[in-house]
This record gives sequence, C-alpha cells and structure tokens, in this order.
Amino acid sequence: MNEIKELTNKVIQFRDDCNWKQFHTPKDLALSLSLEASELLENFQWQSSHEAVAEKHENMKEELADVLMYALLFAHEVGIDVKQAIEEKLQKNNKKYPVEKAYGVSTKYTEL
Amino acid sequence: MNEIKELTNKVIQFRDDCNWKQFHTPKDLALSLSLEASELLENFQWQSSHEAVAEKHENMKEELADVLMYALLFAHEVGIDVKQAIEEKLQKNNKKYPVEKAYGVSTKYTEL
Amino acid sequence: MNEIKELTNKVIQFRDDCNWKQFHTPKDLALSLSLEASELLENFQWQSSHEAVAEKHENMKEELADVLMYALLFAHEVGIDVKQAIEEKLQKNNKKYPVEKAYGVSTKYTEL
Amino acid sequence: MNEIKELTNKVIQFRDDCNWKQFHTPKDLALSLSLEASELLENFQWQSSHEAVAEKHENMKEELADVLMYALLFAHEVGIDVKQAIEEKLQKNNKKYPVEKAYGVSTKYTEL
Repeated sequence: MNEIKELTNKVIQFRDDCNWKQFHTPKDLALSLSLEASELLENFQWQSSHEAVAEKHENMKEELADVLMYALLFAHEVGIDVKQAIEEKLQKNNKKYPVEKAYGVSTKYTEL
Repeated sequence: MNEIKELTNKVIQFRDDCNWKQFHTPKDLALSLSLEASELLENFQWQSSHEAVAEKHENMKEELADVLMYALLFAHEVGIDVKQAIEEKLQKNNKKYPVEKAYGVSTKYTEL
Repeated sequence: MNEIKELTNKVIQFRDDCNWKQFHTPKDLALSLSLEASELLENFQWQSSHEAVAEKHENMKEELADVLMYALLFAHEVGIDVKQAIEEKLQKNNKKYPVEKAYGVSTKYTEL
Repeated sequence: MNEIKELTNKVIQFRDDCNWKQFHTPKDLALSLSLEASELLENFQWQSSHEAVAEKHENMKEELADVLMYALLFAHEVGIDVKQAIEEKLQKNNKKYPVEKAYGVSTKYTEL
C-alpha cells in the first residue's frame, strides 16, 4: 500500500476508535487545521527562526503532525487525492510563476 | 522512492527553479502555512459544510495542496520526518485520549 | 481623553512596565494578533455557536481582549488611527457592496 | 455617546443595510475575525517589518479595520463590553506577569 494511504488509514483508525467521526464535518476539520497551524506558528512568536528551531524542535514536530493529520482527515472526508492535488498545484504554479519573472523575486504572482 | 519523499523533492525543485530558498526561513514557512490554512477555511465562511463542499471543491483542493506543500517545505527545512512525526503523535494521542474516556466525547483531553 | 486613546495608553503602560517594546515589531504583533484570533476561534471547535457561547463566554471575553490589545498595539506601532481606519473602511464597503446587490446575499463582492 | 459604542453602531448599521445579520452567528464571526487577522499578517509574508510597513501601510490599515469591525460585531452579538474586557484582562495580566519576573523577558507566563 502506498505511504499516504497508509498514514490516512492510521489516522482514521484513531478517529474511529474514539468515535469522533460525528464531530468531523469538513468545516470543523478546516477550522481545526487552521488552529493547529497557529499552534505551530506560535513557536516562532517573539523569536527569530534560529532561536525558535533551537529551542522548540520537538513541539514543532508535534504541531506539524497535528496539521498533517487534519489535512489527511479533511482530504478523506471531502474526497481529495492528496498526491494528485499537490502535483496539479505545482503544474499550475509553474504557469503562474514563469521562471523568467519569478526568479529570486518574492512578489505575489498577481503583481508580477 | 517513497511517496512523501518524492512529493517533497518536486516541491523543492519548484522552489529552486524560482530561487526562493532565500525567503524560506522556518518562521516565514510556518507563517505561510497558517495563511494557506486560513484560505482553505475561507471556503466555509458564512456557509455550512454541505453548501461549501458542493460549491467550492476545486478551490479546497488547491488550498489544501498549498497547505501541504508548505508543510513539506517546513519539515524539510527544519529536519522533520513527516511519517515518523505522524506516527509518534498518534501514539501520544492514544495515551492522552484513552478510549474509555474519549469515546464519543469532543472535550479536550485536558478536561477529560 | 477619548476612549480608544485611553485604552491604548493603558495597554502601552503594561507593555512598558514589562519592558516588552523590544519584542514588539509590527510583524510579531500581527502574528500575535492572528494567534489570539485563533484562540478565540478555538472556543467554537467541534461545537455550534449556541453550545460554545453557553459554555465558554468568559474565555471568549478574555481572548477577544487579547485580540483587541494586540490590535491597539499594532495600530500604535505602525501609526494607524483606529477610529479613522474603521470609518474609511465602512465608506469603502458601502461602495463595494451596494445595497441593491448585497441585500441578504453572503457572496463576496468580487462575485457580485 | 462614547467612541466604541458609536463605532459599533456604525458597523451594525452597515450590517443591517445589507441584511447580513442572518449570516452573523458568533462562530462565523470568530472565524471571519481569524481570516481577517491572517490577511493583515499576509502583509508581512517573506518580508521584514521594516520593508512591509514601508510598502503596505494602506493595506494594513484596511485589514486592521476589518479585524476590528468583526471584533465589535462579535462583542455585540455575544454580549461583551469591549472596554471592560480589556481592562479586566490587563488586571489579570498584571498578576500573571509580575514585573520582577517578566521585565524584559518574552517567555510565556506559564514558563516564568
């Protein structure tokens, strides 16, 4: 079995062991993903990247795992193939940010 | 090559084609992940899950892809093994939310 | 003295008592505002508005206060007159969402 | 009339002109506040405070206004006195962060 499918199954197994599917509407999963992304970001509050990574690597790992677990649950619930979604977005980005314009420039594509 | 490694490589290839590594500090990657999670959530603003999924599935797919690409870039930059992080967090959750207490209850574990 | 100026002064007094101005870059204040907005939103995770407001009114009050204190600190640091900003945005919204199009419709103005 | 009450009335007048009260559940208002806080933060993506403030002051003003308008709408809907909430939180912070411990230290109070 492929890796992402395998991880998704484990996350869903945990959800079902707790009988939590009833709470997992797509809206609340997207909301929860956003909350966990904020908890990851909180590790950098009032600090530089360097200080934060040196001091809080373990917590970053846990919060990133939470982000990813909600992402997999959301994808499962709504019917999104995670791998395909990433590959299609990369193709779209390649068109939006043509190298000759985007090279070394952080400007948003709408302003290029 | 495994699936997650392969996707990470593709995302990094795109980043390098654009010469964007210089902007990708862990703090700004975590910040960007949070911004994309908000854009995913925006699909549900003023709507029920049902309405939103019916109307905006395509945009959800794109925003979820953005979330995941920043998650992979962050993990790569900071040195986190995504698969291991998820599996360790699931083990920790299994201890935090013992089935006999968590079954069908949405309360946070601190209040169980 | 007017009310918003008075509240701003109290928040800045607390910041200075703690000697925290050194951490309060506009970027970290905007980041902190976003984190506190997530903590307010967390009160609604897995719950309807009705349940959440009934159970967590006191915490909502605290998190909303945190949001507002960072908003006042940010405005002060960057040089934004809060009252003027709101009044100008309301005028802009009145043009963006003309009543004959926006009445009772939640669609974003770009799609009107 | 005091300043905050006056601004709240103007925001509610706009909401009612558009007949949007029907969409404004506390959960969706908290969600919207969080989305607008992200849009404010987006001004700092890939940039230092200095660069961002120099280039995007006008947009910051607009996004901060959006944050504040949702904060006022939320407070009104849920029955929170904004001024009282801030003053009570400041008193609580004064106890949580005693000056002799917090002076010049960015550590969260739980770790003091």
